[in-house]
Amino acid sequence: MRIAVVAPSCPLKREAADAVRAIVAARGDCELFIHPQCFLSEGHFAGPDETRLRALREVMADPSVGAVWFARGGYGSNRIAEAALAELPGEARGKLYFGYSDAGFLLGGMHKAGLNVAWGPMPQDVLRGDHGVENGTAAVQRALEWMVRRDVSALEGQLQNPAMAFNLTVLSNLLGTPLEPDFVGVDLLIEDVSEHLYRIDRTMFHVTASPNIRKVARLRLGRIADILPNDVDFGSDEEAIVRDWCGRSGIHYGGRADIGHDARNKVVPFTSGNR
Amino acid sequence: MRIAVVAPSCPLKREAADAVRAIVAARGDCELFIHPQCFLSEGHFAGPDETRLRALREVMADPSVGAVWFARGGYGSNRIAEAALAELPGEARGKLYFGYSDAGFLLGGMHKAGLNVAWGPMPQDVLRGDHGVENGTAAVQRALEWMVRRDVSALEGQLQNPAMAFNLTVLSNLLGTPLEPDFVGVDLLIEDVSEHLYRIDRTMFHVTASPNIRKVARLRLGRIADILPNDVDFGSDEEAIVRDWCGRSGIHYGGRADIGHDARNKVVPFTSGNR
Repeated sequence: MRIAVVAPSCPLKREAADAVRAIVAARGDCELFIHPQCFLSEGHFAGPDETRLRALREVMADPSVGAVWFARGGYGSNRIAEAALAELPGEARGKLYFGYSDAGFLLGGMHKAGLNVAWGPMPQDVLRGDHGVENGTAAVQRALEWMVRRDVSALEGQLQNPAMAFNLTVLSNLLGTPLEPDFVGVDLLIEDVSEHLYRIDRTMFHVTASPNIRKVARLRLGRIADILPNDVDFGSDEEAIVRDWCGRSGIHYGGRADIGHDARNKVVPFTSGNR
Repeated sequence: MRIAVVAPSCPLKREAADAVRAIVAARGDCELFIHPQCFLSEGHFAGPDETRLRALREVMADPSVGAVWFARGGYGSNRIAEAALAELPGEARGKLYFGYSDAGFLLGGMHKAGLNVAWGPMPQDVLRGDHGVENGTAAVQRALEWMVRRDVSALEGQLQNPAMAFNLTVLSNLLGTPLEPDFVGVDLLIEDVSEHLYRIDRTMFHVTASPNIRKVARLRLGRIADILPNDVDFGSDEEAIVRDWCGRSGIHYGGRADIGHDARNKVVPFTSGNR
């Protein structure tokens, strides 16, 4: 399988690219093409919108590419997502689109457009060394195991079909946009990073007010990492917050999920009820 | 006029309450009731949801109260806003509801419910000393001039009817909820505080994707205060960001607005096209 890496949000670090190339070379069961666009930099982004869009459209249309792997998160894929999905070439179908965090804007819109997408670790994650439990190499290997071999041990352990996973803040910002998929009957996994608890509470208010979100089969909470301090203690924790808003909105809270902005982050293929 | 102060979000500081009491006493043209709920504290909030809700419902139903003045922003009015609007007593109509920032959740929902609301400075603002240009006393006097005397010099200078004003992040979080008002034909003023530029960009993406927001007559940008630093320079500024998203979404950008999280913040009465 040939895997193409593009960066619809922020630039990929050179040392991450080198480390992932080495992992792929050692595996010998796939081929990696890291698009030069990944290393561009314009302000916050990995190059201007048009350049990021062109690179993405290029690998989407390339019949030799079996998987498009988003280089990293950050911010910016929403700025090109709608254009990336316009007049889809036939070659865009039948390949896998893989990533998480800010790439959720693309995952949502692509899934809605009938493309095959999955949440999971990205090339930049190779630099993680979280917790001493698992490191970035394990995260990248897990992503490759799914992309290349569909190894079910890469999957989040309690998935029910259909399933989706989103960064909570990204999910909140795609509701009401053309990227919003149908959530009916979905096992919806959420996680977040570097937010204050009052923001998690406010975002849960927003997300759980959505009639579409209220149709999920259940909502499960991944890890909320690097919570920013409130000036006074918020008085609750992330699980109590999510339980509270699920209770208020009639959404079934399904417990914790094994995803997050860390090296343990598992794979969640987006599936539809009718597949 | 009797003005009742309640705190649907965070607690009011005692020194702010004392300073506002002194201002009102010196004016002699109105009476101030600062509800004791304003000084409660439970975690992030000015008391538990039920207590904040009860205080708000109490002053809404009080026929002796001519204006309900929200003590300050912070976070939390969204948690009680829907309940505050349920089965409205007749006495809730005919009075003015006044505040900004997090109170925008209430302003949005109350305006939608046909109540008379306005954006403007709050009691806690008396402690501001921004810029040496205007201080917190001037902000509080401006609010009182509108509440008590409908003095048009308190108004934002370029308002067109109908008009509304929102903190951008609050606006983003009320879209799709039962608090979302009708934006058709509205002169919509936005401002924000303590956000990264990438978040302003992301929130503008979300807000300008809304079919309801796309019906505004024009969108105007107040002050974006205390912008948090990006690790790399974002590569754009707040006005370029807002212009960009207005352009992409077909919204008329109407230029700058004289509102913000500062002592210069002006009054914006929410008006309907049919008033």
